[in-house]
Amino acid sequence: MASIAKKVKKSDDALEDESEALEAIDSCQNEIDALNEKASEEILKVEQKYNGLRKPYFQKRNEIIKRIPSFWVTAIVNHPQISGILEEEEEECLQFMEKLEVEEFEDIKSGYRIHFYFDENPYFENKVLTKEFNLGSSGETPVSTSTAIKWKPDRDLTKMLPKKAMANRRKRGLEYRTFFDWFTDNNDPINDDIAELIKDDLWPNPLQYYLVPDIEVEPEAEEDGGEEDFGDDGEGEEEEDELEEEEEEA
Amino acid sequence: MASIAKKVKKSDDALEDESEALEAIDSCQNEIDALNEKASEEILKVEQKYNGLRKPYFQKRNEIIKRIPSFWVTAIVNHPQISGILEEEEEECLQFMEKLEVEEFEDIKSGYRIHFYFDENPYFENKVLTKEFNLGSSGETPVSTSTAIKWKPDRDLTKMLPKKAMANRRKRGLEYRTFFDWFTDNNDPINDDIAELIKDDLWPNPLQYYLVPDIEVEPEAEEDGGEEDFGDDGEGEEEEDELEEEEEEA
Repeated sequence: MASIAKKVKKSDDALEDESEALEAIDSCQNEIDALNEKASEEILKVEQKYNGLRKPYFQKRNEIIKRIPSFWVTAIVNHPQISGILEEEEEECLQFMEKLEVEEFEDIKSGYRIHFYFDENPYFENKVLTKEFNLGSSGETPVSTSTAIKWKPDRDLTKMLPKKAMANRRKRGLEYRTFFDWFTDNNDPINDDIAELIKDDLWPNPLQYYLVPDIEVEPEAEEDGGEEDFGDDGEGEEEEDELEEEEEEA
Repeated sequence: MASIAKKVKKSDDALEDESEALEAIDSCQNEIDALNEKASEEILKVEQKYNGLRKPYFQKRNEIIKRIPSFWVTAIVNHPQISGILEEEEEECLQFMEKLEVEEFEDIKSGYRIHFYFDENPYFENKVLTKEFNLGSSGETPVSTSTAIKWKPDRDLTKMLPKKAMANRRKRGLEYRTFFDWFTDNNDPINDDIAELIKDDLWPNPLQYYLVPDIEVEPEAEEDGGEEDFGDDGEGEEEEDELEEEEEEA
């Protein structure tokens, strides 16, 4: 603690008292830091416990979802942001997606995986496409990886979009990336908005997006709570209206 | 659940199965939502518990800090961002601050108060100046309020800075606000960076900022860990150098 003693030009007594006080503050800080660490650990345990408790419901939900053809692709198409990267032929391809699953790492903080399960389909051989985010602990560089897609001959959707279509997307203010561009791109894992929207918005409640078109058909639909259960907040609706307006202007 | 039945144009059987499936998904979502709510409550309880456990250490720390003259004003002057709003005469005034305290609301989420305790001083009559942030629960509009300062005659620091000084601050790339401008301004409570820096950075560990100048006195000071305890990162040092250069130019 040599640094403390040099701190101020004061009488020896004042100097000694300040030095003592600083040591005492430092030891308070250490106690506070230790409590902070214990708090983080306890909160993590609570999160892990509830992740475990939620799991069977997510599994049950996924089983039920399989009974509804095109559930996931519909929810994605209706999602105000995620739909922005979906090209028409990709939408065809995602009709074959029978299950989507988000799996957090055991410690929650360090990463997660998004699994897309597919039926037999004309586009690729894989049964599962996984994008994994390894966000690491402090100090480590975050990394994402994705399953190499075994495209069937002439079916590689990352190579099928002509440059013109991409320029057109840009002009319409849409993202220049398409769904499979996003899936295969691992250049900037900490700013992957689409992955975060899937994990934190689509996965926790896909039903609200699956059901969005209903709301649009009847914008004045009953306000008496009949639809509240689905937690729809009407955001998707506005989004769609804006798009329509833009298209009319163009 | 009338909305579900209208969803798709399919055979009656398919329609009925989908309707049933959607109800089942909805009930899964409700279970998940209930678990989310319970998880939030449990996490809040952990946070409240540790807030309680930390409190005596913060109180003890505040008592010790009183033994060090000008502790808080020094920490503020050394803080790389907060120092940016401090004018010279305000620094004089803050020499009379004997205690700073951040108090979170009981439920943590809904707000907090920053208390500045002052000794008898030539600037104002108040013993305590408090800025309170009432961030409310979802739906409510966040509001901040601050103690009305009873300035002594001709001592109102919010009116003492000539326009020229403010223009000069802007030219130097500093914030146009001064400390008391910040304190009395309640126009944008959700984007109050200074309040957040005080709450989340200065208050949790003021010692690291109080100690910054030591490093400047001896830039080559021992690298052997003697100073590591205080978590200094040397940022404040650069800041001061820049200021000095600017003042010489002026």
